[in-house]
Formats: sequence, C-alpha cells, structure tokens
Amino acid sequence: MLTYTRNARIEWGDCDPAGIVFFPRYFAMFDSCTTALFSQTLGMNKFQLFKRYKFAGYPMVDTRARFLKPCKFGDDVVIETKVVKLGRSSFDIEHRITLDGKLCVEAFDKRVWVDRDPADPDKIRAAPLPRDLIDKFNAA
Amino acid sequence: MLTYTRNARIEWGDCDPAGIVFFPRYFAMFDSCTTALFSQTLGMNKFQLFKRYKFAGYPMVDTRARFLKPCKFGDDVVIETKVVKLGRSSFDIEHRITLDGKLCVEAFDKRVWVDRDPADPDKIRAAPLPRDLIDKFNAA
Amino acid sequence: MLTYTRNARIEWGDCDPAGIVFFPRYFAMFDSCTTALFSQTLGMNKFQLFKRYKFAGYPMVDTRARFLKPCKFGDDVVIETKVVKLGRSSFDIEHRITLDGKLCVEAFDKRVWVDRDPADPDKIRAAPLPRDLIDKFNAA
Amino acid sequence: MLTYTRNARIEWGDCDPAGIVFFPRYFAMFDSCTTALFSQTLGMNKFQLFKRYKFAGYPMVDTRARFLKPCKFGDDVVIETKVVKLGRSSFDIEHRITLDGKLCVEAFDKRVWVDRDPADPDKIRAAPLPRDLIDKFNAA
Repeated sequence: MLTYTRNARIEWGDCDPAGIVFFPRYFAMFDSCTTALFSQTLGMNKFQLFKRYKFAGYPMVDTRARFLKPCKFGDDVVIETKVVKLGRSSFDIEHRITLDGKLCVEAFDKRVWVDRDPADPDKIRAAPLPRDLIDKFNAA
Repeated sequence: MLTYTRNARIEWGDCDPAGIVFFPRYFAMFDSCTTALFSQTLGMNKFQLFKRYKFAGYPMVDTRARFLKPCKFGDDVVIETKVVKLGRSSFDIEHRITLDGKLCVEAFDKRVWVDRDPADPDKIRAAPLPRDLIDKFNAA
Repeated sequence: MLTYTRNARIEWGDCDPAGIVFFPRYFAMFDSCTTALFSQTLGMNKFQLFKRYKFAGYPMVDTRARFLKPCKFGDDVVIETKVVKLGRSSFDIEHRITLDGKLCVEAFDKRVWVDRDPADPDKIRAAPLPRDLIDKFNAA
Repeated sequence: MLTYTRNARIEWGDCDPAGIVFFPRYFAMFDSCTTALFSQTLGMNKFQLFKRYKFAGYPMVDTRARFLKPCKFGDDVVIETKVVKLGRSSFDIEHRITLDGKLCVEAFDKRVWVDRDPADPDKIRAAPLPRDLIDKFNAA
C-alpha cells in the first residue's frame, strides 16, 4: 500500500492551554499529508492536480480518530499516511502519528472525488476517480 | 438529554478553495459547543471550571464524524450538541449541524476528564468526574 | 463612521499553552467582523456579496496590530470594527477588543477590492469598489 | 543578523475560497519560524526552553505585515526570519516570504519575554531576557 511519511515538530500554535495538541489541528495535519501522498504519487502539487483533472476536490465524508497519547509542543513526531482503498469515486486513507515509536493518534478517512454540478456550479457531486490517476496509484 | 443549541454563520476563514468548510474547522466548532454546554449546565466558563475543579481538561479520546452535505461561507447553520453518556471518568457527546433543517454533519465524541499526574506534572491522566458536576448534569 | 460590534467569548481552541489567545486567531476574528460589518451594511452575507458583485474578495494588503493586554479562554470581550476610509479600490478598517472596558488589542487594516484578471483567471487584480456599495456605506 | 530559512509548501487548508492564503495563517507560519529560529540558535525546542528558563512565553506586542503578492495552495515559498534587535525584555523579528524570488509578504514583530507574576500566577509580566540566552544569540 502506498505510504507517505513525514517528520514533523508539534507547533506551539497547534497546542491548547493544557499544552497538548488541540485535536482539530491533527485533522489539518492529516489533510496536508493526504495531499502530500497524492503529490508524491502523481508528481504534481494540488494546484496542478486541479488544472490537470478539472475536478472540485476530495472532501471528507467520514472520519474517525483515536487519540491514545497526547503530543505537546516541541515533540518530534512521525506521521504515516497510506491509501488503503481506491474505489470508483471514493478512497480510504489511514494515518498514524507516533512519538518515539509509540502510537499517539490513528485516523481512518473516507473521501470522495467531486466535480461541479453542470446544472448548478455552486454545487459539488461525486465523480469517478480519473482512470490514469488510478493507474498511477496502482503502478506506484 | 442535555442539549446546547447554537446558531452560527459559516465564516470565509473556515472555508477552503472549494468554497466549503475545511473539515478540521468543524471539530473546532464542536469543541466550542461542548464547552458551551458545560458552561450552560454549570453556570461557569471554562477558566472558572479549571479554578473550581483543579483538573487539566477533557481531551478527546475518540471521535467520528460524517459529512453529508457541504456548508459554504455565509450559510446560517444550527449546531446541536448533547451529552449522551456521563461515565466515571469519560463522557460521550454528539453533535449535529443542520442547514434549513437538513443534516450536514454529525459527530460522536468520547472525551476523558484528566488531571495532572503528581509523579510527573508534565503528564496528564484520567480522573473521576467530580461528584457535584455529575449531580448538576443530572439535575439539569 | 460605520461600526459593527460583537460580544464574543474567547475559546479554549484559540488559546496557546500560556493560556492566552494565540495572536493569529485575533486576525481571524477581525476578518469575521469585517465581513459582518459588510453584511450588516449591505444586507447580504459574503456568498450573496460574491453573487451580486462578481468580484474575487477583499484581501488584506497591510495590517498592524498592537496587543496591550492578553485575553484568556473564557473571557467575554467586545470587538468593535469600523470603516475609517473607503477609497477607490481599497478601504481601511480598525478593530478594538476590550475586556471590562480595557483595551486589549487594536488593529489597523488596509484591504483592496479585487476581481479576476480576464487575461489570466488564476490571477486577481485591484478593481474599483462598486458605486452602489459605496452609496450604501455612505447612506448607512 | 541571525536568520532562519524555511522552504514551505502552501497548504490547501491555509487557503480561502479565493484560493489564496487566508492571511491569519501567515502569522501562524511566522510564529513557527520565530520558534524555529530560537531552537536553531539555542539548540533546544520550545518545551525545553520553558524547562530551562522558567518563563511564560514571548507573546506578540506589536506586529505589522504587508501582503504584496498572494500565494496559493501548492506554491513552494521560502520564509526568511531574522532577529533584528534584542532588547532588555523585548526583541524584534522580521519575516519575508518569497515565491520564485519575488517578495510576497513581509512582517515586522515586536515580542516581549514574560514570566508569571508571583503576586498572581494567572497574570504574566515582562521580564528581562536571560543573560546566557542573549550571549548565545550574540555568539551565533
């Protein structure tokens, strides 16, 4: 399974008055890592991805996260993000954050590939994942 | 079950280049509503709560969210937050965001009440929910 | 001068490990209040504003803020936002946050009204403020 | 003058519906880079800094930023952060963000070193910068 790995230092601004990561920030980290995994696999950044595929994003439809051990500012963590399933118009991603080899957070995402609804461009709707994108993921 | 309800307008700064809420921001809204529910029930803000109970917070240990319908900037949504279970040292919260009566997001949280570990004040550990706090929730 | 006033409670998630507002969050509050001032004056939310005026936003070009007194989570502050100048394609906004009548933060913004460059729709460029928008501000 | 340089990719989650960085996020980047400059100079992360110096942070007291050219998601920018003045209990920092060598944002910060007020530990107050910290900055 395709995996993207990042070393990251927990920021002061990601932490709350208890000195630990304010949990919504973990989801922003995971979003960034999901995009980085796409960029690593496809060889283009997200802006280029939009230009190439004329889509409207891959919004989250379902996510679950378990927080086992708090991380504090200054902690040097490892974030591992992998694709566990590529469906027709959705895909599943998993993330793990470890500190000194110990699991701190794990998360399970389902996202959907969307484009603009021609009948109402303010609306988005599920669309099939591009064939050559799937091919590149399978080949990677 | 105790419920807190908030009317909120979706902010420009909560939205991403697709024009819809960047999903981690929903979790910040839910965190704010959980605190507001505590404040409403106990008659004190979170700072006063810390002063009163000498604890270290109620960090998230498990959360799941489903995103059914995207919200965009300018949308006037309703957020409903309720306590579904008060355990010995943990509690379960549910949130629903609706727009014009239609469900957009639902989330299910488990949080744990923590205090500082006397053996190492840099560490937090689960602690029993204060008796009189439980009494106030039950009486409300 | 047109003024928008908001009562707000400082959120746990806006604060850092020192227990006070992480200063970038003040700018998000100010952005929200600037939009609310426009909405109050023009009778439409930001999405409707985009539909009505076919523009691309009013990005910040210059901001300065002074932080005189820290705010902590649970604090009930007052935010006052006013238009101090409406230029041809830019405008100046000022914000003040007070706690119990004492000034905590003041900020001075210059923003510019932009639209898409027809020669390259990925680019934005300064554009004149719509005449009837200026009229509504002057009449308010 | 001491300088810290970072290569960074602009994140989807840092951008607004216009597709460009929501300006408050620049301040979070600058905060992170200021801390990284301290860590680089002193050889310790911010948590270790707190342990070593028993202080309460270096909150912003005055900041100004000019936004000359918008950055969009996927842009690979360079952030340069330098100390321009170390005073008795305050210090001045400057940041520059460039894209392909062109200046996009510049910012000028004054921060103050604070500790807890022994008369009221909920309050912070200005304190002299530690002598050996100044020495390390001067020697670097």
